[in-house]
Amino acid sequence: MPLYDATVTQLDKMLANLDSWIEEALAHAEARGFDPSCYATYRLAPDQYTFTRQVQAACDAAKFVAARSAGKDAPKHEDGDATVEELRARIALVREFLATFTPADFEGADDRVVALPFLPGKGMKAEAYVLQMALPNFYFHLVHAYAILRHAGVKLGKMPFIGGLDLVEL
Amino acid sequence: MPLYDATVTQLDKMLANLDSWIEEALAHAEARGFDPSCYATYRLAPDQYTFTRQVQAACDAAKFVAARSAGKDAPKHEDGDATVEELRARIALVREFLATFTPADFEGADDRVVALPFLPGKGMKAEAYVLQMALPNFYFHLVHAYAILRHAGVKLGKMPFIGGLDLVEL
Repeated sequence: MPLYDATVTQLDKMLANLDSWIEEALAHAEARGFDPSCYATYRLAPDQYTFTRQVQAACDAAKFVAARSAGKDAPKHEDGDATVEELRARIALVREFLATFTPADFEGADDRVVALPFLPGKGMKAEAYVLQMALPNFYFHLVHAYAILRHAGVKLGKMPFIGGLDLVEL
Repeated sequence: MPLYDATVTQLDKMLANLDSWIEEALAHAEARGFDPSCYATYRLAPDQYTFTRQVQAACDAAKFVAARSAGKDAPKHEDGDATVEELRARIALVREFLATFTPADFEGADDRVVALPFLPGKGMKAEAYVLQMALPNFYFHLVHAYAILRHAGVKLGKMPFIGGLDLVEL
């Protein structure tokens, strides 16, 4: 599987899906007459990230997996409090960054070693980094963001999670 | 990225991780003095799967992604109610099934088209199926199972989620 497809193409689609869940959450808040800023600090356990931090972490995971496996620098985005609009703007910024990559950026990634900031002196081969660390970490935060919205009563389902598929006729 | 690594190797590791979270959940129940069968029907939203169904769905996703992308048949496992011990036995069965695959089973998978049972007449190329459908679906149920345990007070963290990594020295 080409690393470009596994990272840039797929993560961009999932970030677009995430944005659509937030749109649904805004409609839910309006229909029920509550302030959508309530979502920001919602969480599933007191020692887990809030919705805001889950979205920020999913955005970071997406930009870092593309940047690190292609050997580029990722732009810095500040964490901390954020309105729902600011979260959507961050998703858009990361999608713009992903759009700057081409399949050619991943040529030679087979031999690239990615440094792990949380394990000084250690790294992983790019392919192992994507499969074992980056994709599971991305989905960890993405699914938590989804689950927090579902827990808050937003009506979503498997199709808005998965999104569009490249189908062929049998 | 070899499809074998992306499916069999990675999903087997994540199922082993899932089993370790259940072990942690059993210890939590014992320490707090409640019946661990309480986990079975726990869920994050009334219209989401219970913990039992999330684990069963993650197991199914893992066996189907390997079987379908290698062009093999997957064993059938009955759903419905299950004790925590039965869920652990199912995880072990799927891991045994995954252990029957070798990288050679995935030769020629580039040209294989996988039929989608929920979309009659439609299929996907094996690589697109793995990236766009099977891995996101697996992580969807796996992370929900994890999040339900966290919501129930089980102490887990990012490291038990990610599991072991193939590290290299920088």
